[in-house]
Amino acid sequence: MSDPGVEPSLLNGIATTRSIRRYRPDPVPTEDLNTILFAATRAPQGSNRQGFRFVVLRDGPRALEARRLIGEGARSVWADKRVTDAYDRGSGAADDSPKARMARTMQHFVDHVHEAPVIVLACLHCHRAPSLALGGAVWPAVQNLLLGARALGYGGVITGWHGPREAEIRQVLGMPADPDRLAIAATIPLGRPVGGHGPVRRRPLAEVVYEDGWGEAAPWAVDPEGARFTAPGPPSGLRL
Amino acid sequence: MSDPGVEPSLLNGIATTRSIRRYRPDPVPTEDLNTILFAATRAPQGSNRQGFRFVVLRDGPRALEARRLIGEGARSVWADKRVTDAYDRGSGAADDSPKARMARTMQHFVDHVHEAPVIVLACLHCHRAPSLALGGAVWPAVQNLLLGARALGYGGVITGWHGPREAEIRQVLGMPADPDRLAIAATIPLGRPVGGHGPVRRRPLAEVVYEDGWGEAAPWAVDPEGARFTAPGPPSGLRL
Repeated sequence: MSDPGVEPSLLNGIATTRSIRRYRPDPVPTEDLNTILFAATRAPQGSNRQGFRFVVLRDGPRALEARRLIGEGARSVWADKRVTDAYDRGSGAADDSPKARMARTMQHFVDHVHEAPVIVLACLHCHRAPSLALGGAVWPAVQNLLLGARALGYGGVITGWHGPREAEIRQVLGMPADPDRLAIAATIPLGRPVGGHGPVRRRPLAEVVYEDGWGEAAPWAVDPEGARFTAPGPPSGLRL
Repeated sequence: MSDPGVEPSLLNGIATTRSIRRYRPDPVPTEDLNTILFAATRAPQGSNRQGFRFVVLRDGPRALEARRLIGEGARSVWADKRVTDAYDRGSGAADDSPKARMARTMQHFVDHVHEAPVIVLACLHCHRAPSLALGGAVWPAVQNLLLGARALGYGGVITGWHGPREAEIRQVLGMPADPDRLAIAATIPLGRPVGGHGPVRRRPLAEVVYEDGWGEAAPWAVDPEGARFTAPGPPSGLRL
């Protein structure tokens, strides 16, 4: 775990920004929010349109209502996923299995996400129909936001938990109603982590980096000593 | 300009990673490529699917053919855009206008992009139809790649220049043909910048950061001293 009081180097920060789903209750000072949002907005957009917008939810009256709706969305998505992905069956039936641990983490997360010190909605003015390509105008800023938070010792995670209650959230916050004109790309809770930052686990580089042709291993794509790898576990994602 | 030999802090690196469109011819050592791709793959995916894949193009036989097709795509996109966005009319008619300067930069870029020391295709295995939301599984990795490059003194830029020749590029590289199953999200040339890294220009924070409601200014969202702002100029993006 890094010392949250010391800003990491660029490479170290990138390597130790993992998804954080438990937050201490400490509020985030506005000075830190400013730094985090400034970092977010330094992202490239693949164009100069600068269509991203961030709505920060703290303790304002509309924020509290939006938080409530986000919490409901989170619990409904997770309740479905817990069943669909059989988190409580097979290896998940054993309390100490990775699957059961993940299920506990997720249950705690969705039960408390509405209480995160800050929740940020990352939005995008869409000049054409939302698409994978158009995502280049907002997702790099989301990553910068998470890295900016990490720089100050905060953590967060990308979720789509506005989804089930999106229309109501838009209404509460006074947002334009049409998601094809203004999309909410992500809902990102932020706070000081319970536990710490740390290396993320990923597939070995050799599985995801190719050279000169599809599926052709790049001989130089070798994980550094100490890299951690994805453990076998639940097969599918936790979001959306 | 930062010294390219010194790795910046996380926040400084984020604030000084701007789009780089001119590259020195120096090759990128494989050790550096490894570091850059490792950084890319540390990105969250909003899920645990790990569907991103990176195809690195250097000087292999298929890489050279793919480079040629990317260069053709770049020049055809820019030729259209130069006319459509009237880069040579209005203020663009004056050689020293921002519009004319941008047009020269872009013309040089598209004329030489195929020669960039490295070109990376950022791809995504799509488990459902490509969408803005699904972009959360690849664009954060693209941003990490650009930041990882910046950490070592390299620069790059997000482009969609595979677009016009995408089918042929896929064929040359032996990629699956169906873009709805395997998408190419971005084509990213990389190299040592001619000129330097440096602060990016953006809209004032107050225009893009809201609190507690859509369009509600966050009083704490104030740009730090020395921040540079977008100059009035060509109205639209340079990509896609």
